[in-house]
Amino acid sequence: MSTVTPTGASLLSSLRPEARHAPESGIVEVVNHGRLKEGLIPLWVGEGDLPTPDFIARAANASLAKGETFYTWQRGIPDLREALARYHTALYGRPFSMESFFITGSGMQAVQIVVRMVTGPGDEVVIPTPAWPNVGAAIGVAGAIPVNVPMDYVQGRFSLDLDRLAAAITPKTRAIAINSPANPTGWTATKDELAAILALARKHGLWIIADEIYARFVYDGSARAASFHDVMEPEDRVLFVQTFSKNWAMTGWRVGWIEAPPAFGQVIENLIQYSTSGVPVFVQRGAIAALDEGEPFVAEQIARAAEGRRIIAEGLKATNRVTLSPPDGALYQFFSVDGWQDSRALAIDLVDRANVGLAPGTAFGPGGETGLRLCFARKASDLVETVARLQRALAS
Amino acid sequence: MSTVTPTGASLLSSLRPEARHAPESGIVEVVNHGRLKEGLIPLWVGEGDLPTPDFIARAANASLAKGETFYTWQRGIPDLREALARYHTALYGRPFSMESFFITGSGMQAVQIVVRMVTGPGDEVVIPTPAWPNVGAAIGVAGAIPVNVPMDYVQGRFSLDLDRLAAAITPKTRAIAINSPANPTGWTATKDELAAILALARKHGLWIIADEIYARFVYDGSARAASFHDVMEPEDRVLFVQTFSKNWAMTGWRVGWIEAPPAFGQVIENLIQYSTSGVPVFVQRGAIAALDEGEPFVAEQIARAAEGRRIIAEGLKATNRVTLSPPDGALYQFFSVDGWQDSRALAIDLVDRANVGLAPGTAFGPGGETGLRLCFARKASDLVETVARLQRALAS
Repeated sequence: MSTVTPTGASLLSSLRPEARHAPESGIVEVVNHGRLKEGLIPLWVGEGDLPTPDFIARAANASLAKGETFYTWQRGIPDLREALARYHTALYGRPFSMESFFITGSGMQAVQIVVRMVTGPGDEVVIPTPAWPNVGAAIGVAGAIPVNVPMDYVQGRFSLDLDRLAAAITPKTRAIAINSPANPTGWTATKDELAAILALARKHGLWIIADEIYARFVYDGSARAASFHDVMEPEDRVLFVQTFSKNWAMTGWRVGWIEAPPAFGQVIENLIQYSTSGVPVFVQRGAIAALDEGEPFVAEQIARAAEGRRIIAEGLKATNRVTLSPPDGALYQFFSVDGWQDSRALAIDLVDRANVGLAPGTAFGPGGETGLRLCFARKASDLVETVARLQRALAS
Repeated sequence: MSTVTPTGASLLSSLRPEARHAPESGIVEVVNHGRLKEGLIPLWVGEGDLPTPDFIARAANASLAKGETFYTWQRGIPDLREALARYHTALYGRPFSMESFFITGSGMQAVQIVVRMVTGPGDEVVIPTPAWPNVGAAIGVAGAIPVNVPMDYVQGRFSLDLDRLAAAITPKTRAIAINSPANPTGWTATKDELAAILALARKHGLWIIADEIYARFVYDGSARAASFHDVMEPEDRVLFVQTFSKNWAMTGWRVGWIEAPPAFGQVIENLIQYSTSGVPVFVQRGAIAALDEGEPFVAEQIARAAEGRRIIAEGLKATNRVTLSPPDGALYQFFSVDGWQDSRALAIDLVDRANVGLAPGTAFGPGGETGLRLCFARKASDLVETVARLQRALAS
């Protein structure tokens, strides 16, 4: 952060508290500590090392060359909404309508809009933690209160205590935010757990904000993780937030989607209109290519992640200094180091001594303060080197 | 709008009122009426007919080819922020720092973030009207109240009564939103008027949300309109919202910027993080090309708009059925048709009988309900044909 002058401080004090108090990312602090270190292996953010594949970039270029540079549908171009319906039909084995899909300028914008739809000042949203901090922060910016429910963390494995989740519900609760497979924990709900959470939501009239963006990254041989799609009915209150970032290596494209009841079309269109007014057509053309031609690339990504997960889990276990359980899903190994309670200090120490960038558990809310998150969506040689560096650093 | 089923209606009723009541655009209703009419000349939205120039698209293509497809700075890439500082230094004749500029995913997102910074539930924001409806709508979505101050409309010319503006200020007022040159009215504040508005803001401790996106489109031979930059001091509470859409024909790129006190950097970074998490690097590379190489294109756009303004004003006056005054700035001719009070009905009638698409004054709030907005950023032959069609329709 730059130094704030007296004038700056006076101006700052006149801003709204929800804006002024939006938290700075706890990951960024460590990133800033290590950003310029030569040779550092950066495994601190949720992003792989592959650029977007050429066939996606070519589709965007072709669109630009055709002059698709004008305003477009606020809900997303029909071609992309139809491609999403096809993609979901194939993945979930039942028909989907394009009217359920709304294109957003990132998964984050999907979260922001869904949060606006279901919560506001005076409301509470229940979130199992550790969790990706941006959902709670978006709830705070909306003036509502994120209510954290720490997961159990035993022998490096996270589990969700459904009674504790139920106990966190108050008359002010409006929604439950469920991320499965989960960042940073790797927790992946079973179908029974999802059914139990849905039953809880039905009982209390709550919305579920379902973040299933890592659904394809599971390691038991399944094609995908269990989904609320497997247990819900059309009248259930479930809003899905999604992104093109992970499956198709499109983090930098800022494109995602909301899946919602078609009756919400006009409301979502209006909220898109008054926040970003849509997504560039040429970006959407890239997203269509991703959905329609991207399965070989997704398969390669999943295989690569499985190999990365194996290298990291086996290598870290061999240090005999680490407690971990290989994650059921997502792209992260969460682990604790014996003798270290303060993950923020540990992450900074490992930048300095191992030249490896990891995210501190403190960035993800209650329940994982002692651990570190490592993103293994990276080429094997880097991960082998990571293990060697961590072995040396943890032995000394 | 699609039909809403009973299930849909029940789900809708459980959404937050700020979300559910975000207004549908009053322009879109007319667009939907005429969208499929063959040969219709569409002058209803604020967009020219030129695609983005090639040199901008090429910069984006080159970035994609280099694999710039990863997460990036939330505040915008330093190269673009520096290019904005250079651009402002040239346009306003004094030094600017890159630390004042923050890249957003559209001018609309700039508005949304600035609104979040200065207003919230219980607050009021004063807006002269008729006005671009999205600012008031974004204020409403934030839970605050837009307070409209109708401008005077005499002989087709709009003017702002500063006493009426002052009288609209209450203890709840937090900001004044000023758009000059204005959409849809063409009103362009003098330096003295801006100084008077600034004095009012200083007196009451209010923020000014300054929308000067049409600053280059003025028709008195000046290089630009008067700006709050000409009258403000560093400690003044002025936040600028800006876009690449109009000057560089980049409506479909969804990229804009906020200019704010550098002390707000972390707050703005956080609000970007929790809304869209940044703008694609390849889009930002296009924006740099626009700033650094775009002056000949901007000059062409301005000359084209001046010619469009002349054709429309002279042609409509010749009908003897219209009251208008050529606008001092922006890209719109606002006019009334003798004998018509209901601009919504008139706009629909002109779609049907003239095959010309215009925006009804009713879409822009109090003060211009009887008029129509015509965007003249279009090739001369289309505008000559527009005049001929309107002459025939208004004569019958």
